[in-house]
Amino acid sequence: MEDYKVLLVKEHVFAENEVNADTVRKEFSENKKLLINVMSSPGSGKTTTLVRLIEMLPQYRIGVMECDIDADCDAKTITEHGGKSIQLHTGGMCHMDAQMTKQGLDELGMDDIDVCFIENVGNLVCPAEFDTGADINLTILSVPEGDDKPAKYPLMYEVSDVVLINKIDTLPVFDFDTELVKERIRKLNPDAVIFFVSSKTGEGFKDCITWLSNAIEQRRREHA
Amino acid sequence: MEDYKVLLVKEHVFAENEVNADTVRKEFSENKKLLINVMSSPGSGKTTTLVRLIEMLPQYRIGVMECDIDADCDAKTITEHGGKSIQLHTGGMCHMDAQMTKQGLDELGMDDIDVCFIENVGNLVCPAEFDTGADINLTILSVPEGDDKPAKYPLMYEVSDVVLINKIDTLPVFDFDTELVKERIRKLNPDAVIFFVSSKTGEGFKDCITWLSNAIEQRRREHA
Repeated sequence: MEDYKVLLVKEHVFAENEVNADTVRKEFSENKKLLINVMSSPGSGKTTTLVRLIEMLPQYRIGVMECDIDADCDAKTITEHGGKSIQLHTGGMCHMDAQMTKQGLDELGMDDIDVCFIENVGNLVCPAEFDTGADINLTILSVPEGDDKPAKYPLMYEVSDVVLINKIDTLPVFDFDTELVKERIRKLNPDAVIFFVSSKTGEGFKDCITWLSNAIEQRRREHA
Repeated sequence: MEDYKVLLVKEHVFAENEVNADTVRKEFSENKKLLINVMSSPGSGKTTTLVRLIEMLPQYRIGVMECDIDADCDAKTITEHGGKSIQLHTGGMCHMDAQMTKQGLDELGMDDIDVCFIENVGNLVCPAEFDTGADINLTILSVPEGDDKPAKYPLMYEVSDVVLINKIDTLPVFDFDTELVKERIRKLNPDAVIFFVSSKTGEGFKDCITWLSNAIEQRRREHA
């Protein structure tokens, strides 16, 4: 018996998505909880980052919807590290939408969590086009992928509120210009909050944790 | 004036795709030339690998269709290294299909090339679902992405004839099990040809170049 459930989610038509997304956002707002959509290429470190956040935020109960084409390993990793998790299978789909979020949330439940993350399908193109209903879009770009990714996949950076530049422990090994990547992101999205971190070593997470705690507390104070 | 042309390509309906793919394959076969579709996540090293292949195969004239959402830099890189290149813009689309290949080929031309590569959109999900008309599907997985990618994005590995495990110069920096990744790929696709390479240093390319030369020569001998 696993500690997480596996759910097959189906895509709804594009036109309905905005309505569903607003419904999801309203539910989180009314419950004074936060939903964060985590996006990146495959292998940028989404799961490792979520594990790091769970470890560094012991004062909050963290829920994670793990969205994969058909693997289960990430939900298992999250539960092993103390998060509450559900595994969503997209049945081959390349992104999450708001209806999938609703289906996942119905199973995961909101009562015993303070903040919920969606770990979207690893894909720098399609997830950017679909509103999941999240309050915050967070994109991870890892150093080995290169500092040119914002220029090549602009929509992802246009829709992202926060960008984590991950795997900074490998900066000596790769040609990656940290100033240039900031410039490229800010050109697409002047308001983007950018953190340089290593989910593997924990380096750089202090500011990120402060920002995240503030966002959770601010949501709690809304409509108070 | 640039050395390459930029073309906006449009998607056709899924049903037509197989017919278009067969038309493309027939044209390459009749001309005794080879079309290879290169796929990977963003930042796995598709362009760097193509530059390396151009350098190591001076006896062949190499064409490249660079397929990006809207950037032009990769076509420029290819022409600078002696390849013949065209830049295809998908207008936001997450993959290439066979009609796009036909449009690209009409512009690129086939007379003055021996082998043609499609550099597909960086995406480990959608390109696997669309036949581009290529003779060979080649997927690149880079070490920093992790050895679990075949398990998480199985269709890509099921449709791939050849897998290049790239950035092996960074093996000491990452937890990446080379035996396990082979096992995971072969479980999905027992016939997959696998090479371990570093496009940055050139390491491991000898066997890959032999395989590619043999494929080009075999195509030349067909129907001789």
